[in-house]
Amino acid sequence: MKGKMKAVVKEKPEYGAVYKEVDIPQIGPEQVLIKVESISICGTDHHIYVWNKWAQENICPPQIMGHEVAGVVIETGSRVKKVESGDFISAETHIPCGHCYQCLIGKQHICKNMKILGVHKNGVFAEYAVIEEVDVWKNDPNIPRNFASIQEPLGNAVDTILSGNVDGKDILITGAGPVGLLSVGIAKTFGASNVLVSEPNKYRRELSFKMGADYVVNPANEDLISAVNDIFGEKGVDFTAEMSGNPEAIKNGIKAVTPGGIISLLGLPADELQLNLTQDVIFKNIKIIGITGRKMFSTWNIVSNLLKSERINVSPVITHKFPLQDFKKGMKLMGEGNCGKIILKP
Amino acid sequence: MKGKMKAVVKEKPEYGAVYKEVDIPQIGPEQVLIKVESISICGTDHHIYVWNKWAQENICPPQIMGHEVAGVVIETGSRVKKVESGDFISAETHIPCGHCYQCLIGKQHICKNMKILGVHKNGVFAEYAVIEEVDVWKNDPNIPRNFASIQEPLGNAVDTILSGNVDGKDILITGAGPVGLLSVGIAKTFGASNVLVSEPNKYRRELSFKMGADYVVNPANEDLISAVNDIFGEKGVDFTAEMSGNPEAIKNGIKAVTPGGIISLLGLPADELQLNLTQDVIFKNIKIIGITGRKMFSTWNIVSNLLKSERINVSPVITHKFPLQDFKKGMKLMGEGNCGKIILKP
Amino acid sequence: MKGKMKAVVKEKPEYGAVYKEVDIPQIGPEQVLIKVESISICGTDHHIYVWNKWAQENICPPQIMGHEVAGVVIETGSRVKKVESGDFISAETHIPCGHCYQCLIGKQHICKNMKILGVHKNGVFAEYAVIEEVDVWKNDPNIPRNFASIQEPLGNAVDTILSGNVDGKDILITGAGPVGLLSVGIAKTFGASNVLVSEPNKYRRELSFKMGADYVVNPANEDLISAVNDIFGEKGVDFTAEMSGNPEAIKNGIKAVTPGGIISLLGLPADELQLNLTQDVIFKNIKIIGITGRKMFSTWNIVSNLLKSERINVSPVITHKFPLQDFKKGMKLMGEGNCGKIILKP
Amino acid sequence: MKGKMKAVVKEKPEYGAVYKEVDIPQIGPEQVLIKVESISICGTDHHIYVWNKWAQENICPPQIMGHEVAGVVIETGSRVKKVESGDFISAETHIPCGHCYQCLIGKQHICKNMKILGVHKNGVFAEYAVIEEVDVWKNDPNIPRNFASIQEPLGNAVDTILSGNVDGKDILITGAGPVGLLSVGIAKTFGASNVLVSEPNKYRRELSFKMGADYVVNPANEDLISAVNDIFGEKGVDFTAEMSGNPEAIKNGIKAVTPGGIISLLGLPADELQLNLTQDVIFKNIKIIGITGRKMFSTWNIVSNLLKSERINVSPVITHKFPLQDFKKGMKLMGEGNCGKIILKP
Repeated sequence: MKGKMKAVVKEKPEYGAVYKEVDIPQIGPEQVLIKVESISICGTDHHIYVWNKWAQENICPPQIMGHEVAGVVIETGSRVKKVESGDFISAETHIPCGHCYQCLIGKQHICKNMKILGVHKNGVFAEYAVIEEVDVWKNDPNIPRNFASIQEPLGNAVDTILSGNVDGKDILITGAGPVGLLSVGIAKTFGASNVLVSEPNKYRRELSFKMGADYVVNPANEDLISAVNDIFGEKGVDFTAEMSGNPEAIKNGIKAVTPGGIISLLGLPADELQLNLTQDVIFKNIKIIGITGRKMFSTWNIVSNLLKSERINVSPVITHKFPLQDFKKGMKLMGEGNCGKIILKP
Repeated sequence: MKGKMKAVVKEKPEYGAVYKEVDIPQIGPEQVLIKVESISICGTDHHIYVWNKWAQENICPPQIMGHEVAGVVIETGSRVKKVESGDFISAETHIPCGHCYQCLIGKQHICKNMKILGVHKNGVFAEYAVIEEVDVWKNDPNIPRNFASIQEPLGNAVDTILSGNVDGKDILITGAGPVGLLSVGIAKTFGASNVLVSEPNKYRRELSFKMGADYVVNPANEDLISAVNDIFGEKGVDFTAEMSGNPEAIKNGIKAVTPGGIISLLGLPADELQLNLTQDVIFKNIKIIGITGRKMFSTWNIVSNLLKSERINVSPVITHKFPLQDFKKGMKLMGEGNCGKIILKP
Repeated sequence: MKGKMKAVVKEKPEYGAVYKEVDIPQIGPEQVLIKVESISICGTDHHIYVWNKWAQENICPPQIMGHEVAGVVIETGSRVKKVESGDFISAETHIPCGHCYQCLIGKQHICKNMKILGVHKNGVFAEYAVIEEVDVWKNDPNIPRNFASIQEPLGNAVDTILSGNVDGKDILITGAGPVGLLSVGIAKTFGASNVLVSEPNKYRRELSFKMGADYVVNPANEDLISAVNDIFGEKGVDFTAEMSGNPEAIKNGIKAVTPGGIISLLGLPADELQLNLTQDVIFKNIKIIGITGRKMFSTWNIVSNLLKSERINVSPVITHKFPLQDFKKGMKLMGEGNCGKIILKP
Repeated sequence: MKGKMKAVVKEKPEYGAVYKEVDIPQIGPEQVLIKVESISICGTDHHIYVWNKWAQENICPPQIMGHEVAGVVIETGSRVKKVESGDFISAETHIPCGHCYQCLIGKQHICKNMKILGVHKNGVFAEYAVIEEVDVWKNDPNIPRNFASIQEPLGNAVDTILSGNVDGKDILITGAGPVGLLSVGIAKTFGASNVLVSEPNKYRRELSFKMGADYVVNPANEDLISAVNDIFGEKGVDFTAEMSGNPEAIKNGIKAVTPGGIISLLGLPADELQLNLTQDVIFKNIKIIGITGRKMFSTWNIVSNLLKSERINVSPVITHKFPLQDFKKGMKLMGEGNCGKIILKP
């Protein structure tokens, strides 16, 4: 399709982004063009917006921002077989190479040559966006349409919690940003007995309760390990889902785990981290699991099934909706932490 | 302790049982004596009562009936270390030998020389009962005391559902007797998206909904496979929990499973069963898992944790309570199927 | 490519097949044409040749036979990206639909709408053959070229043995046809302590020893269960790999498994089978696993790695090589059982 | 038994130990006394001997050293049921408390209140030694008697390699001390395709080849990551078994693992370690697994089965045998690294 569209563009290697008119992008033979219906803001988008160290090393402006998206297919490339015009889709955001070892053995979600939508190529904060056929997820007509764009982060929560075998277990979630909050809901949905959340932001602590947390602590005021001991006794927790990337949260998240337990890491620490592997990992026989992405597409199937059957209510996590041109309001809220997931509408 | 007590005794190799006075049993060095607080009736007890084929081959009257029990320790054998008088306990009912291959490698719950409380030795339908130290489960003071005796069958439900990886999945439960009903609740607690129950008894179909079933069919009127296809499409279900022992339920339960799925069997078919392994198991790459017992004691820990944290409400399953001397009312209800779990109080 | 080629064709719905000239097949946009270098005969090919019941229900003559193949790509369809002309490939023989539930969640090897090379479409007993791009496995230049066509059945052996966690365990393999023999080798390669083989054919019993079997019994003369007890004591085996499809072998294979163990079924019984699920499966807490196909392509990667590193010597299994036109010699040997794997060369 | 015996005693909180006469220790009701037949020296013993930082913080002299042991039972406590006088046993060295969460749920090998033989109580470098009944492993008469005392470290190797699913995979072992060398053998026995060993000591590099290593590098001269890339290409290894505790080995061992792979840590780093969790663990979706102990007693069963069936030849690892009074020769060799496992005979 030829023409112009509005988009949020990271124009220069510096703080900020602009809402401006650009060309509607053209699709290749294995891509589809969608009319964007809803977008959500990820922490990564905020990193790119504020131009932190990671963004400086990974992003090449000018580039359209954003990757969490749902929309309607309006054009399909010549080889596309999965969908046709009119289909309502969401997008996996990891673009696998298709030929590395991981892709070959059915693990394309951790492709060694991974490209990411809105990071390594133009994103979706726009009226139209290009999606690779391999990343297309055709939405079930019965999932709530409002939640279509947040299936991607919900998939992160699902994969993290699944890695912990939480049925009937006591768990700790460190960090109640949007994915942390979704993880609280998923942990309860998947049978965790008791969920303790550690989160310094008051707004997010309150949201944690709405998502089903049994206990919530403010690690700025309370010692997390003392809180774990008070609540769970000397046993500690069976599983920690680390969603903050905060060094203290990671260290305490490891210490809180009972011998034989698991800590899964989704939050990305900015720097290297000093760990006592002997005392905290080896003698305790614990597992540290790095979580990235969603399995393509078994995780998406679970996410869709949960939304369709209303087994999880993600409404409390969606705290704000703005028109796309007001994206700066969203970025401001993300910086302050006084929000859950923010939806943008082109 | 010396003295007399009331007990339900299977006196003769024939239908029925009697409520009569017998000696209080004496404990050995690795046993405890409990004052029975509550008992529940298992399907096995009903088999023994009506003296079916299995009972005729396995039970040697005279014997005190029953195995699901909770009570207070009033005497401990000389070597007992796990508990002391006054402790409120429930009992694992599998008595492992301690020296076979399974016991050696940490699988004493499937000991090759297993004895079962109330089957191979005197049971618990009495004012006092002897429990092996190895079978003692010390109850957490925070679990609802009313539910203490049904942790044993709840453990069956937990082990069955855990074997199916039900998170976000579609599942079928064939048979809504007490353990089937508990399994409905556990399946929902552990994150199943959709639970279909198949049960011919109307009373139990209604209880299934109370326990959280999303769909319920009567296999006497409806073709189960058609119902599965109507609800889940050609995919079928990811997992079947077979709780009835009924041959048609087992066969349809296998057919209902999608390729790559699982069927776990807890219900005991009375006779051999004809299966089409080629079409239904091998080409479909499915797993058939026989479930017996509860893991000692990781399953008990999960059960206790779920009850303590009120992650499952088992109240709807407990449909009747009688004084012990009215045990025949319970047996009659069990025979008719118009009940869930029946509690007896000495 | 236009022209004529020689091929083994199942011409009519009756016993036998003919070696004749046919058109070289034409490829579609997602297919490749290979010049066949080596072919091996599978039990399925023999079923089709002798026109057994299964063949009568599944095969529509006229059709080129065969599916185990290796060859060199000489033409590629317009959309093909995985290989180019000159590449030496082997073929996965399961052709997934790409859009069912199983395909969607990364289990295309058990696609619900599976088609099979040489069963549902023309096969590879010919000078040239068409392979779907999705089924192409590009061979590592370091694998022994002679073994390229048997990677497909070797993958069956790998998936079967992997399902049994055999490290340091005692295992039983019932049936020492070609895949059974490969499974003996794989079981030893993967760390089984003791492998007992049950096989009525003398030639194959001897081959079993060559592949590393520790014990071999003839079930026609000896009671298999007695043999298991003599060798392994009352424990039995930890795992049975059932490769024969023989009803007695399946039943005894289940009985031989120790409580908590596994039996995996690859052999296809011709008829329904009567099983004692209560005594043999449920009370024993065992798993019955149906095995079909190879995972695409994690199994192929393992197979290739084992051949490359010479961790398994499959030479003893390859007992005969014939020119393609002598395929009837191979079929005769397969019928008598006095062979391992038979290679045909066009 | 009353009397005197010779023993190696850590008498004072300083370098060294003495060979002297002490009282034969007395057993409690749940202990057995063994006449020691063979002992082996563990790295831990050397730490205690040289009085390193860890030893200073954990050992309270005077104490008999040593924990790897085999011997004949000559006295049994009043409650002992597992063995009787005359039985030839080896000893698990972890002494679980029996009542913590881990002990309760069948994970006593990682008991939260673990005591260790020869660390928290008198050890086995003596003519007689006391073993807890819970730690008794009755040896199969068919295992080679010479290898009886090294089943304990062989169990470490088994648990480490089992955690890596090595069948047909490429693996890296960092550190070829005695347990590293045993791990090389176990990795090959359990089906690893290619094993690369990294070890600075020449003597141990040569032993690595004898145990089956396919490639061996000296990390003091060669860059380990370059070596991994040369051998395995950009893929890296599927699994690293870290046996050295060396900080560079741990870091490179993590980096060498392909996305989705595993690193298991058995070697104990002396200090905290700085890790890049974001790049090396989270984005790569790898697992870090701390390994401690042997499962009680499923690991012992595997070890015994492997020795009995001669599936592993551990002879090359046993490089020296000394009479007990020459223990200082062994300690010297351990310090220099020019040895595998050293056996002492009282």
